[in-house]
Amino acid sequence: MKRIGLAAQVDARTGQSPQRYSPIAWERILSGIDRNGRPQVELMKVLSAALERGELAGGVRLPSGRELARILGVSRNTVIAAISDLVDHGYLVSRERSGVYIADPLPPMATPSAPRQPMDRIDWGARFSVGGIAEAAASTSIPPPAHSFEYGQFDFSLFPIAHWRECERAALGKLEIACWARDMGDEDDVELLEELRKHILPYYGIWSRPDEILITLGGQQGRYLVAQLLSGRGTRAGIEHPGLPDMAKILGVTSAEIRHLPVDQDGLILGDALDSCDTVYVTPDHQNPTTVTMSLTRRQDLLKRAASRDFVVVEDTFETEFVFHEPSLPSLRSMDGDNRVVHVGSLSKLMAPGLRLGYVVASPTVIRELRALRRLMHRHPPGNNQRALAIFIRHGHYRTHMRRAAVELGRRSAALAAALDRWLPDVRWRHRPGTSSFWLELPLELDAGRLSMAAERRGVRVTPGRRFFSGLEPAGNFIRLAVSTLGEYQIEAGIRLLELLIFNLKKGDLGHC
Amino acid sequence: MKRIGLAAQVDARTGQSPQRYSPIAWERILSGIDRNGRPQVELMKVLSAALERGELAGGVRLPSGRELARILGVSRNTVIAAISDLVDHGYLVSRERSGVYIADPLPPMATPSAPRQPMDRIDWGARFSVGGIAEAAASTSIPPPAHSFEYGQFDFSLFPIAHWRECERAALGKLEIACWARDMGDEDDVELLEELRKHILPYYGIWSRPDEILITLGGQQGRYLVAQLLSGRGTRAGIEHPGLPDMAKILGVTSAEIRHLPVDQDGLILGDALDSCDTVYVTPDHQNPTTVTMSLTRRQDLLKRAASRDFVVVEDTFETEFVFHEPSLPSLRSMDGDNRVVHVGSLSKLMAPGLRLGYVVASPTVIRELRALRRLMHRHPPGNNQRALAIFIRHGHYRTHMRRAAVELGRRSAALAAALDRWLPDVRWRHRPGTSSFWLELPLELDAGRLSMAAERRGVRVTPGRRFFSGLEPAGNFIRLAVSTLGEYQIEAGIRLLELLIFNLKKGDLGHC
Repeated sequence: MKRIGLAAQVDARTGQSPQRYSPIAWERILSGIDRNGRPQVELMKVLSAALERGELAGGVRLPSGRELARILGVSRNTVIAAISDLVDHGYLVSRERSGVYIADPLPPMATPSAPRQPMDRIDWGARFSVGGIAEAAASTSIPPPAHSFEYGQFDFSLFPIAHWRECERAALGKLEIACWARDMGDEDDVELLEELRKHILPYYGIWSRPDEILITLGGQQGRYLVAQLLSGRGTRAGIEHPGLPDMAKILGVTSAEIRHLPVDQDGLILGDALDSCDTVYVTPDHQNPTTVTMSLTRRQDLLKRAASRDFVVVEDTFETEFVFHEPSLPSLRSMDGDNRVVHVGSLSKLMAPGLRLGYVVASPTVIRELRALRRLMHRHPPGNNQRALAIFIRHGHYRTHMRRAAVELGRRSAALAAALDRWLPDVRWRHRPGTSSFWLELPLELDAGRLSMAAERRGVRVTPGRRFFSGLEPAGNFIRLAVSTLGEYQIEAGIRLLELLIFNLKKGDLGHC
Repeated sequence: MKRIGLAAQVDARTGQSPQRYSPIAWERILSGIDRNGRPQVELMKVLSAALERGELAGGVRLPSGRELARILGVSRNTVIAAISDLVDHGYLVSRERSGVYIADPLPPMATPSAPRQPMDRIDWGARFSVGGIAEAAASTSIPPPAHSFEYGQFDFSLFPIAHWRECERAALGKLEIACWARDMGDEDDVELLEELRKHILPYYGIWSRPDEILITLGGQQGRYLVAQLLSGRGTRAGIEHPGLPDMAKILGVTSAEIRHLPVDQDGLILGDALDSCDTVYVTPDHQNPTTVTMSLTRRQDLLKRAASRDFVVVEDTFETEFVFHEPSLPSLRSMDGDNRVVHVGSLSKLMAPGLRLGYVVASPTVIRELRALRRLMHRHPPGNNQRALAIFIRHGHYRTHMRRAAVELGRRSAALAAALDRWLPDVRWRHRPGTSSFWLELPLELDAGRLSMAAERRGVRVTPGRRFFSGLEPAGNFIRLAVSTLGEYQIEAGIRLLELLIFNLKKGDLGHC
């Protein structure tokens, strides 16, 4: 009794399936197998695919081990190990003295409604409580051109694959799983909290107890949670101008009234506008986008002012993961005698921003409330990543990676500085050693928006400065360049292209006058 | 020149370190090594620890390969491979014709401020825009007693360690890393979106395009995001009564006005209170906590009512990951002709809630806005977990795991049903096959709160029903039991303990009368 045509004879939906398939049928089913992969995995993949296509059904008997070994071209022992694994995991069922069978299939799925053109019978716009963000928050998904001076994107050639893999694997030990795989409620991984407070925070001069720390999904979530807790409707929030565009958008969602506070070469200017704020958001170590570091005197004065006018200071350690390799000024949090500084940082930006890990350090009263808010939002950052990062820090990999990344960024920054001095001598720029970004002031007659559009067409991405000014008195002649993605030897070529564009743009502008 | 005392002779801070250590010194430094681990990892660990303790410093020369092999008791080739790895990663520096050295240390860290008793000089309570949640949201962290009938906690004996490890490893391929390690902005992993829409959503009868799906950090984030977008200040939200306590808390944070809508044996009752709602949150497949499944007629009527009164329906597929193994009623989203149903689900509850993965399916207009909101909150769920789950589904492991978990839950549920019938025959209970929880109605004179406190002291955890009633007409005689954690053979013992307690409590109550 030979069976060849499969699909015609097997109907998974009615369960009318033959109990045995012929060798030729099996050869066809198994023909898609990848002989270089692990036999268990590969066997399971082709069986699943055949079930999915309706070519196989539950109750069908598998060929003998010998027969399978022949078809697959592997040893019989390999086949037996693979089958035993698949039986353990429920794909196959072993019946004594009878053989191995495909396990009973899942019931037929509910008939899916046909793919349809969505047809909204509802005026969504009128129903959005926090509408219009989709326009405001531009996606970062446009693929970068050949020379991208875009900030913050990850250079995956630097990702410590082997070490991270080792730590992920360690986090999958049985005892580790028992710690992180459960719903952790409002908790964080205790081991990550320990590593953080013992081996990371001291670099910022911060010595914290575990109840003063919250793990977040990157620096972004730190900013968002703090804004939601402290800068709601009816409060005033001060932000730097120019500054991080997302900060203004977040405060738009939380309905705070925004005060734009100007910045000079010592950091945030302590003007009168400060005094009416309930909360002030600053990036003292590395002002975004000007790269300015707030001076020690300014830091001390800011904290005095905060105490006398009773406002809260949110210290955002923007890109200071990179500054590990050089002594820094003390963080505001480390100088804070009142417990009124909330310190927000990232742990993954340097390694793989896609991992989304960061932290907030603050008074236990604040952390307790942030923790409760985070629990309602999504409980906690995934436990496996928290535990893997704890192990990564404990094994010393974080420190090493920091050092390597800093050395690499130093090389690239030196190349960019040299290229700017050589090819764009009349452009003024500012850069903090140990970070990835440069803030450029172009000649006044140049429009950074036009330059960036022209550059994008020529394969060079730069960030026009206007977006950091939140629509207020936009200075049109600033751009930001960063060396996060571009290798040392591609930098000069990018700057030469930029120089050519600036030359042409100047000519064109003069032509129009 | 023999050196023995280490700490005394090396001062990492001043850099005054000897360039060579004696064999005895090295033996002491290396004595902590774990000879069963991977030599690279172990060598790196002891070196890091010695650096940390100040026993080693940058610039110290490593012993020769031969010498190290002797001290460590491994082959010279192993030592050379380990050293080469550590050089690659920057722990060690190889100087030509001179030897291998400990890399230059990081600069001394900023002097940490001493651990201090936090001293808040600020009235935080007055500043919280969303205060008082910390009280309301009880932590789930109290360790469970011997017999825990708590809902939803993870039974890690069911976690598919080997398969998940295989998928995490696959997600660490170079090409995979290039996809997920970057800051993904407002995007999700395209592969997870594909697996979800092709292999998971069809089980609910849903056929979606990628722009109708958002990946979330578990079902909890789906609920939160949707509430923040659609149930802000000035809107009315209907929730089930009794129902999920967190839903009311979330709506408290988003400032919606809440309507409590009663439930009967067919699910949500379609009363007049419904009509004044802007958004109605329902759990049709498995009402929480009553375990009721909404009837087909009720589903049809709810959708008709939603269309005629123009409200939005949020369908929360509470615990229906477990129901894969039996045909279900069509989901509201699959019956929705108007695109007015928002469908919220979990992907990790069944496997490891700590992984925090779930999804929302809705009109592209809604998804676009949720995506923008999520971008401001924390960008995206970690990319490595998204990719690992995509591979897990593609390889068929998700389906298998689902089947195994359903079989196991079925066994446990049967044991609980039998134990209840045998030991507590006058208690009425309700359970939906394929799920983990039971809803028990105790004799009227019993107080569930007192019972649960007494039970906790005797090593049995049950959930009193009162918390599902949001303080309105609390029915005092309900409890919920679940079989998420307790194995089949421990269940009856737990119920016998409960029976004894109820017996004593009744006696005590009668005594008081």
